[in-house]
Amino acid sequence: MLSTQGYAAMTAKAPLQPFSFERREVGPRDILITITHCGICHSDIHQARDEWGGSIFPMVPGHEIVGTVTRVGSAVKTFNIGERAGVGCFVDSCRTCGPCREGSEQYCEAGMLLTYNGRDKDGQPTQGGYSAQIVVDENYVLRIPSALSPAGAAPLLCAGITTYSPLRHWGVGKYHKLAVVGLGGLGHMAIKIAKALGTEVTVLSTSERKRQDAMRLGATDFALTSQAETFTRLQRHFDFILDTVSAPHNYNAYVNLLKTDGTMILVGAPDKPSPLEPFPLILHRRRIAGSVIGGIRETQAMLDFCATHRIESDIEVIPIQQVNEAYERVLKGDVRFRFVIDLASLK
Amino acid sequence: MLSTQGYAAMTAKAPLQPFSFERREVGPRDILITITHCGICHSDIHQARDEWGGSIFPMVPGHEIVGTVTRVGSAVKTFNIGERAGVGCFVDSCRTCGPCREGSEQYCEAGMLLTYNGRDKDGQPTQGGYSAQIVVDENYVLRIPSALSPAGAAPLLCAGITTYSPLRHWGVGKYHKLAVVGLGGLGHMAIKIAKALGTEVTVLSTSERKRQDAMRLGATDFALTSQAETFTRLQRHFDFILDTVSAPHNYNAYVNLLKTDGTMILVGAPDKPSPLEPFPLILHRRRIAGSVIGGIRETQAMLDFCATHRIESDIEVIPIQQVNEAYERVLKGDVRFRFVIDLASLK
Repeated sequence: MLSTQGYAAMTAKAPLQPFSFERREVGPRDILITITHCGICHSDIHQARDEWGGSIFPMVPGHEIVGTVTRVGSAVKTFNIGERAGVGCFVDSCRTCGPCREGSEQYCEAGMLLTYNGRDKDGQPTQGGYSAQIVVDENYVLRIPSALSPAGAAPLLCAGITTYSPLRHWGVGKYHKLAVVGLGGLGHMAIKIAKALGTEVTVLSTSERKRQDAMRLGATDFALTSQAETFTRLQRHFDFILDTVSAPHNYNAYVNLLKTDGTMILVGAPDKPSPLEPFPLILHRRRIAGSVIGGIRETQAMLDFCATHRIESDIEVIPIQQVNEAYERVLKGDVRFRFVIDLASLK
Repeated sequence: MLSTQGYAAMTAKAPLQPFSFERREVGPRDILITITHCGICHSDIHQARDEWGGSIFPMVPGHEIVGTVTRVGSAVKTFNIGERAGVGCFVDSCRTCGPCREGSEQYCEAGMLLTYNGRDKDGQPTQGGYSAQIVVDENYVLRIPSALSPAGAAPLLCAGITTYSPLRHWGVGKYHKLAVVGLGGLGHMAIKIAKALGTEVTVLSTSERKRQDAMRLGATDFALTSQAETFTRLQRHFDFILDTVSAPHNYNAYVNLLKTDGTMILVGAPDKPSPLEPFPLILHRRRIAGSVIGGIRETQAMLDFCATHRIESDIEVIPIQQVNEAYERVLKGDVRFRFVIDLASLK
């Protein structure tokens, strides 16, 4: 077993603290990655605090992982020692169901194996990237293009793919008008990716202080959702809405901003239901859909796309000792736009 | 002006009663149809009782109209005197917006002109098919194939197209599993049409007494929504759900019956919102959509499809003097599956 240092939540109420644990030995198809950077995703906080239920403790969070390959199993063909590598939200899946065979492992019918807060085949809990190293089957490891910085690339592995996947799945592109609801970690990636796709982006936000960032990131319009005027001015305006907000909000108001046949895609996940009115959907054949991260091939395509278009996350790099303070700042929306832990600080 | 006999709701609280009113003269592009049959749609009751708000009184309901052409305007090219003709839920639209140009007049950006409970360009209220005759622009008149009986064809003009349009729009066909929620006027048409499309149909209903009808109409399975077991047995089972129920119900339970990338299509319109949980959509990229009737070309295609497949509505023909009693029976679900008024009774 590989003795590994990290930071863990020991219980749902506890702040994260230094924690030593064991990783499995490197198997024939495994890759050992020495982690250099790991992004902090809002879902890390939800799970570390057991806000979605079912959390496994102690928990080492982190699923936006970038590092360097330091060992490879005897049968590994895809990576060499010294190469950069990334790991996203899952580290395995059944590999045999329809979605897995189609490369949509995130929709694996047996359930994908989460990078942390999951249970591996041997029953052991998986542990994430707030740690020195990780062992992952080569089929679930991503290649990080050299055009991307390791720290700026880390959040692409969740925030990037979460927004890229639905934009590509629904064919959002030139000639489309897209609204991005919420300007946080997900929202800022959505603007960058949609802009690279040639899409006209409007940011809808509760906060006037996000206007400048929205425009700098590539939006062509910005509107306050706190103002009723927004919902009259932009009525039936958008082909797509990408909703990144994880606080409960009124879906109906946004649905009315869609054209006929428009689609509102939920990637933020409020933990409470919101009342849905059927008429705004029915009278204009609109749709509400959901989407979660992306498959491995698609995640690689996203990384390559980001390299081509020089897209990285806007980040604030912190030492791991500041992780609890960073959590509080994430909850206040006080980050532009993603914290990334520099794991060199762990030593 | 053309003096016309019909039955009208004089106020939201009044039963329907005999009513004389004026129709416009037959213009150059108009067709005068002597109405032989008109279906009773649940939405007639909603509107006659002002349950959706904004109703215009006196109101002659009815938008499932079949009759015989008795006069044509000087410029009419499509119909001849003596031919059978049908009129559905709308009698005009702007004809210039994107949806109108594409033949999706039901999504006209200026709003379609409803067959009744609408206001024509001259400001006069439109009046529906519980009447002796109607004057309609030829572009909004349907051809009733001779293979269909006039009475059995009437409900196709709303219940038929309401279910046909989304099934075709979403490409429901062979190799798909479809659930039809609710077995009333809409639901029974959905089974017949989906069966003709080669689709495997399961009926989900609150009522065991619908089982026999469901199977007779062509369903391959039937399950009670009052039993929790239904929602475990059929989890992730369907490619599509067509939800015809207009009473408030829990959408989330049904969403969980969809496979990954499955779509639940609302054609029934509860007047109250229902709480929507985002996770069941997000975790399997599922969608909830709405759909309303269909365009003129599509309605004609539906009528021709029904003629080819010998599909008519199951009906109970009544004289117009029984319309108020029929309304009460519709509200109790006591009809298999559509009342059709024989307008010969009006004389």
